[in-house]
Amino acid sequence: MPASYLDRVDLSADRIPERWYNVLPDLPRMPEEYVDAATGQPLSDGQASRLFVPALVAQERSVERWIEIPGPVREAYGMWRPTPLFRAVGLERYLGTPAEIYFKYEGSGPAGSHKLNSALAQAYYAKRDGVKRLVTDTGAGQWGQAIALSCARFELELLVYMIRASYGQKPYRRILMETYGAQVRPSPGPDTAFGRGLLHEFPEHPGSEGTAVSEAMETVLDDPCSRMAVGAFSNYCLMHQTVIGLETREQLEAIDREPDFLIASVGCGSNMGGFVNPWIAQKLAGREITLIAAEPAACPTLTKGVYTWDYPDSSASGPQVLSYSLGHDFIPPVIHAGGLRYHACAPLIGLLRHEGLIDAVALAQSEIFAAGRLMARVHGYLPCPEAAHALKAAIDVALRCKEEDRKAVIVFCYSGQGFLDLGAYGDFNSGVLEDVEPDLSAMPAAVPA
Amino acid sequence: MPASYLDRVDLSADRIPERWYNVLPDLPRMPEEYVDAATGQPLSDGQASRLFVPALVAQERSVERWIEIPGPVREAYGMWRPTPLFRAVGLERYLGTPAEIYFKYEGSGPAGSHKLNSALAQAYYAKRDGVKRLVTDTGAGQWGQAIALSCARFELELLVYMIRASYGQKPYRRILMETYGAQVRPSPGPDTAFGRGLLHEFPEHPGSEGTAVSEAMETVLDDPCSRMAVGAFSNYCLMHQTVIGLETREQLEAIDREPDFLIASVGCGSNMGGFVNPWIAQKLAGREITLIAAEPAACPTLTKGVYTWDYPDSSASGPQVLSYSLGHDFIPPVIHAGGLRYHACAPLIGLLRHEGLIDAVALAQSEIFAAGRLMARVHGYLPCPEAAHALKAAIDVALRCKEEDRKAVIVFCYSGQGFLDLGAYGDFNSGVLEDVEPDLSAMPAAVPA
Repeated sequence: MPASYLDRVDLSADRIPERWYNVLPDLPRMPEEYVDAATGQPLSDGQASRLFVPALVAQERSVERWIEIPGPVREAYGMWRPTPLFRAVGLERYLGTPAEIYFKYEGSGPAGSHKLNSALAQAYYAKRDGVKRLVTDTGAGQWGQAIALSCARFELELLVYMIRASYGQKPYRRILMETYGAQVRPSPGPDTAFGRGLLHEFPEHPGSEGTAVSEAMETVLDDPCSRMAVGAFSNYCLMHQTVIGLETREQLEAIDREPDFLIASVGCGSNMGGFVNPWIAQKLAGREITLIAAEPAACPTLTKGVYTWDYPDSSASGPQVLSYSLGHDFIPPVIHAGGLRYHACAPLIGLLRHEGLIDAVALAQSEIFAAGRLMARVHGYLPCPEAAHALKAAIDVALRCKEEDRKAVIVFCYSGQGFLDLGAYGDFNSGVLEDVEPDLSAMPAAVPA
Repeated sequence: MPASYLDRVDLSADRIPERWYNVLPDLPRMPEEYVDAATGQPLSDGQASRLFVPALVAQERSVERWIEIPGPVREAYGMWRPTPLFRAVGLERYLGTPAEIYFKYEGSGPAGSHKLNSALAQAYYAKRDGVKRLVTDTGAGQWGQAIALSCARFELELLVYMIRASYGQKPYRRILMETYGAQVRPSPGPDTAFGRGLLHEFPEHPGSEGTAVSEAMETVLDDPCSRMAVGAFSNYCLMHQTVIGLETREQLEAIDREPDFLIASVGCGSNMGGFVNPWIAQKLAGREITLIAAEPAACPTLTKGVYTWDYPDSSASGPQVLSYSLGHDFIPPVIHAGGLRYHACAPLIGLLRHEGLIDAVALAQSEIFAAGRLMARVHGYLPCPEAAHALKAAIDVALRCKEEDRKAVIVFCYSGQGFLDLGAYGDFNSGVLEDVEPDLSAMPAAVPA
C-alpha cells in the first residue's frame, strides 16, 4: 500500500570515530592565517589565545591528519552517535528518479542538530584549559542550544548573543538554552559599546551573525576569564564535524555504495566541511565526485560573494581573513534559515570553493520549505530550514538524474530537525512567507588574481 | 572531569519486534466489555465498527497472546525503532544512589514520542479497511502529530480535535499536524452540536480529552466514511505499544539485568501498558517487580479516582466502561502535561490497578519540571512534561533506595522529547508556573465491592 519507506544503515556504538580527520595536510595549500588589521601581520598564537581556548588555537593550524578525540568527548558523543544513514526510497519513488538518495541524519541527538559535535569538544577543552565562561554568538539558535548543553555537561558558564531576529522568531530556542543554564541576550543589545552604537543608529536592527560575533568578542576582551566559542568559522570546528563524514563513509561502504554527489547546506560551513572533507583527498587524486554547497538566495555568499580579505565581524574590530564575503556590513534579509544568514563563510570552505573543489547553489526560501514539507509527508522527518536547503539541492540533482536517466548515488547531510522551526513552517503553510532579495551593495572588491 | 555519562544499549534494526504482545489471555480475568448505556448491553462488534476501524474492533478483545505486526507497519517502525535503552549513570551519581537508573528513550522518532507505535498501526488498518478519513482527539498534541504523520504515510484524510487549552499553549504542535496535511480544530468548537452547547454555557471552556472525544465521536457518527482513531484508550492501542516493553526486555537481558521497578507516566495509559505489560505474566507468577504509574496531582485518576462504570467522553453519549474515573464532568486544571489531563484511564490499566498489579503516585507540576530540567542539564535530553512524571517518580524511588542502601534496577519509560513543550519550561524557568489543585466534586460513586 504505502509506496514510501526508509532504509536505515546503522553503526554500532563502538564505531563512533576515535579520531577527527584534519583536511589541512591533504590540501594543495593551507588556508591563509588570520591577519591583525592594525599591523598587517598574522595573528600570533598569543593574540589568538586571548580570544579563543588555547587548546583550540593549537588545533587551528595543526597539520596532523588525524587528531584523537578525547575520551570524555567521545563518551559524550555516545549520547546519540553514530547517527543513522537513511536511504529515502519513498522520496526516490515520489520523484521517479533512477538515482539513489541517502541522507545522514544529524537530528536525533539531544540538541537536534550537528552543532553538538563541535560544541562538546569546545566545552571540554575550555574546561580543561581553565576557562570559566564561554561567550558565543548564535543565529537561529541551533549552535546556542548545542553549546548550552555542552557547557551544562562540562560545568562552564555560558553567555550567548542571539541575533535579534531569531531571538524574537524562535523563543523556544532561547528557553532551551536558559533551561540548560545559559544567559541569552539579543544582538544588537545594550550590553556592549558596539551594540549600543548600532541601536542608537538603527533601533530596529535585526542583527546578524556578524553583530553577535562583535558583541561576543567585545565581551571576551573585557573579561580575562572568558573565551569565545564558535559554531562554524574555525578550521577546528569543521574538523570536529568530520565525525559526520567519517561515519557516512563507513555506512556507504557497508552497503557497497560510492557517492557521486555529496550535498550540505552552508551558512558558514561547519556541516559542509564535516560532511565532505573526508572525500577531499580522493577528489584531489582524481576521483569523480561532486560536492555541492546549498545556500539561501537571500544570503548568497558562495554564489555571488567575492573571495577577498574581510572581517568576520560587523564591527570590523577583529582580525581579517581570506574567504568569500558579501561584505562585513551586509545585513541579510530576515529569512527563516537563521543559521545561514552570515555575510562570509569559513576560510577553509572559501579555499575549497576557490580551488574549484566544491560547487554552490542558491535557493529561495519558498522552495526549501516546500521540500521540507514534502520530506515530512513522505518520510515523517521534518527538517530544519537549514537542512531543507541540502534536501532541496539533492532533489534538484535527483531530477536532473531523471532527465539524464542516470543511476547516481546522492547523499545529503540532514543537519538538524525542525520542531523548533515550526513557526516558520506555519508561515509557509499559511502563505505569508515571501522570498526576499538581498541588498548586495556592501560587496567588497575581489582580491586581484 | 564530567561526572555524568550515559551508557547506551542498542538493538540492531532486525530486532524490531515481529509481534505485539497481548496481555489479555494472561490476566486473571478480561476487562469488562463496553456497555451501551441505553440498553445496558455490551456493545456489539457491529456497533463498535460504526465508530472504530473494523480490524481494530477485532483486535480489541482478541485472546491471541501474540499478534503479528503487518509488514508495512514494521517497515514504518524502521524509521526509528528499535529505540535505545540508556543507563543514566550521571543521574545516579548526582543523586548518590546505589540503584541503577535506566530509561527507554521513545523520543528519537520523527514524531518525538511513543504515540507513533500505535498511530502507524491504526492508519495502516484504516486504509486497508477502506476508511477514507480518521477523526481523533488530542490533548497536548503528541498523539495528534503521530497520527498526522501516519495518515500522511498511509494516504488518509485526518481531522483532529485538539483541546482548546493546548491549541492555544502549543501552536507548534498544531502547525506540525497541519504540515503533515491534517485539519486541526480546537475543542470545544463550533463545528459540533456538543461543542456549540458547551461554548454557549461556558465560552471560556479550556476543553479536555473528554470534550475532544465527544466532538470526534459526533463527527464520525455523522459521516459513514470516517472512523475514530484513539491515542490511548483501547486494548489494541496498549497492545501496539508493547514494542516498547518487548525491546526493553531484550535490552535488559543483553546486559544481564532484571528490573525491580518499571515506571511510566499515565494519562490514559498507553505508554504504561506498552511498557509494563510484557512483565505482567511474570508478576502474576510471583516475580518481585513493582510497576508504578506516575500521574499529575492535578488529574489524580489512579490515586484519587474510583473504580466504576463511567463514560469515556464528556457528553456521556458514548458507551460506558469500567475503569478508574474522576467523573466524566471533571474539568482538569490547565496544566502543561496536556497529555495527562484525562478524567479516566484505559479499562485495561484500571483493571491492572484494581487487581493490585500496579501502584500509582501523583506528582505536582513544579516538581516534574524541576526533574526535567535536571535531566537536561545532566544528560542533555529534555523530556516532555508527560515523560518528566515518570522521570520524577524514578528519582523518588532512587532516593528511597539510597536511604535503604538498596542496589535496585529502576527502569522508566521516557515517552517523548520536550522541544515542543518549551513554552512550559519557559514558564517554569521564569517562576510563573503554579501548582494547581483539582476540583474533585464530579467524582462518581464507586461500584459496590
